[in-house]
Amino acid sequence: MQLAETYRRRLNSQEYIPMDVEGIAALPQLTVQNIPSEYADRLEKILAFIQNCRKKQVSVALVTSGGTTVPLESRTVRYVDNFSSGNRGSSSAEYFLKKGYAVIFLHRRQSLKPFDRLFSKISPLELCELAASGELIVKKDYKDSYEENMRFRNSFITNKLLHFCEFVSVIDYIMLLRACCQAMKPLGQQALLYLAAAVSDFYIPLDDLPEHKIQSSDGPLSLTLHLVPKMLAPLVQHWVPEAYVISFKLETNIDILVPKARKALATYNHKLVIGNCLDTKSQVVWLVEQDVETPEQIQVKPSGDKEIEHYIVEAVTAKHRLYLTNSVS
Amino acid sequence: MQLAETYRRRLNSQEYIPMDVEGIAALPQLTVQNIPSEYADRLEKILAFIQNCRKKQVSVALVTSGGTTVPLESRTVRYVDNFSSGNRGSSSAEYFLKKGYAVIFLHRRQSLKPFDRLFSKISPLELCELAASGELIVKKDYKDSYEENMRFRNSFITNKLLHFCEFVSVIDYIMLLRACCQAMKPLGQQALLYLAAAVSDFYIPLDDLPEHKIQSSDGPLSLTLHLVPKMLAPLVQHWVPEAYVISFKLETNIDILVPKARKALATYNHKLVIGNCLDTKSQVVWLVEQDVETPEQIQVKPSGDKEIEHYIVEAVTAKHRLYLTNSVS
Repeated sequence: MQLAETYRRRLNSQEYIPMDVEGIAALPQLTVQNIPSEYADRLEKILAFIQNCRKKQVSVALVTSGGTTVPLESRTVRYVDNFSSGNRGSSSAEYFLKKGYAVIFLHRRQSLKPFDRLFSKISPLELCELAASGELIVKKDYKDSYEENMRFRNSFITNKLLHFCEFVSVIDYIMLLRACCQAMKPLGQQALLYLAAAVSDFYIPLDDLPEHKIQSSDGPLSLTLHLVPKMLAPLVQHWVPEAYVISFKLETNIDILVPKARKALATYNHKLVIGNCLDTKSQVVWLVEQDVETPEQIQVKPSGDKEIEHYIVEAVTAKHRLYLTNSVS
Repeated sequence: MQLAETYRRRLNSQEYIPMDVEGIAALPQLTVQNIPSEYADRLEKILAFIQNCRKKQVSVALVTSGGTTVPLESRTVRYVDNFSSGNRGSSSAEYFLKKGYAVIFLHRRQSLKPFDRLFSKISPLELCELAASGELIVKKDYKDSYEENMRFRNSFITNKLLHFCEFVSVIDYIMLLRACCQAMKPLGQQALLYLAAAVSDFYIPLDDLPEHKIQSSDGPLSLTLHLVPKMLAPLVQHWVPEAYVISFKLETNIDILVPKARKALATYNHKLVIGNCLDTKSQVVWLVEQDVETPEQIQVKPSGDKEIEHYIVEAVTAKHRLYLTNSVS
């Protein structure tokens, strides 16, 4: 199929990431016809951001957030999506920044973003009102929160401590994740990866995709979805071998949660799995580590004054500090 | 399966819409475990809105907008989605309001909304800045547009000429569409339906859905998607038989667009199909009517100062007026 061939050729051209690393070779079999738009430009910005962090000697957290899509047609109208509002990732990013980390926020387009997220439920046109002076001013109810979040956001962006990078499809996600890792590798153990995005497990290979919109007049539709290659293996082994890597495990069935987290640790050999269940993910998570028998549980009351992500980031950054200390000694 | 049974029982209970209308009987076979949340309350609000419009003797446009989802698990993590930003529906809703129509805006949660849509691309925290006075004021670049759109929005909402109703899944959409039609039927020919939402053609019946998240360790995934019953047939015949009903046809292949639009008109016997192609939908549409040999084409330049929806709504409201005049004489 011509489309797949063009895609492979572009991937192999030197302007994009090299194909010689385990895991990436599987990518052309993924589902989208194109590399992420403006890929070279975005990689350059990530590299510049990291270079600046190295100068300042700050630790960097890569926070991934939101769901990925897999198209069902190459000129895409329909796609399979993974539910994720992006609340976990965006709130955690705020707490990493407040703990002194620089953050690359690799997120699904239009999912929640740090600081903005508190204003996502109201119309932008409900935020302000006309004052007697003729100015449009932020309404009293929102003012304190708006000002605080605006100051934080502006300060972190101006000081080059917060960098946004967006994806939609699973291939965008994987290629940008690879780009971030490529840039972060020189940070060694100072790099923390907090992989909270809800990444698709299944996709339809490019060669199996119909070009045009599937016609409903053809009757019921049978789809065979293939497994997306697990990027965590090459990521931990090759891309950022020294980094402190945290993955997430979301299940709807609590009985399989911790066993599956343990299995992931054994398979990928990273540092920590944060396990959570769909219905209770804002109230309770389990931190599962190799060589620790009973997972640490973090639990908050629904009406508590701090979000669970505050405590998760406290715990995770403490573990990262310990990891840095232990390797120095 | 217990879930499906509960669902059927709730659908049959008298607090929800009656099951005796053709088309609705097919609904329990749809995919979601529940009727839309707060359904009775939402139906009541729609009824009150329409009653007010009848008192004021204004025509009412029901504008549907955005894509619908179909879950792949009953505790849903994954779903199939239809791409739609909601730009067509939300911009058209503005023009209907400006032409003197009241509008029910039945839209996908978080898709674009009338008047707001112009501010959807910037962070809410980039909208305002701190003035010397200590107030947070809308930045100069946005002020005129913000003020104009805020005034329009507030005025239409305050005067009960704009009502929002949101959906996510295809069953939410169909049941709320049915609720709107139920409320609009007494308007007779004054009712206009502008069905711009991108509704799923395929779904997985409830009884076929796994309850828990599908496990990737089980290997490749085979799915059989069934056809969603076409609601346009009972809608035109029974729900709002006198209304001026407009449907949309989106294709990626231009060669089949007009034939498919004609086929839809012949099948459902409504008034107008607006045909468009994915790549050019902001620049050109075709208005396909029964008994009109050459479809009317509306085309704008990409750099033109008016959006194509301005012209579409001009054309559509003129046709609706003609329909009202012809039936009076």
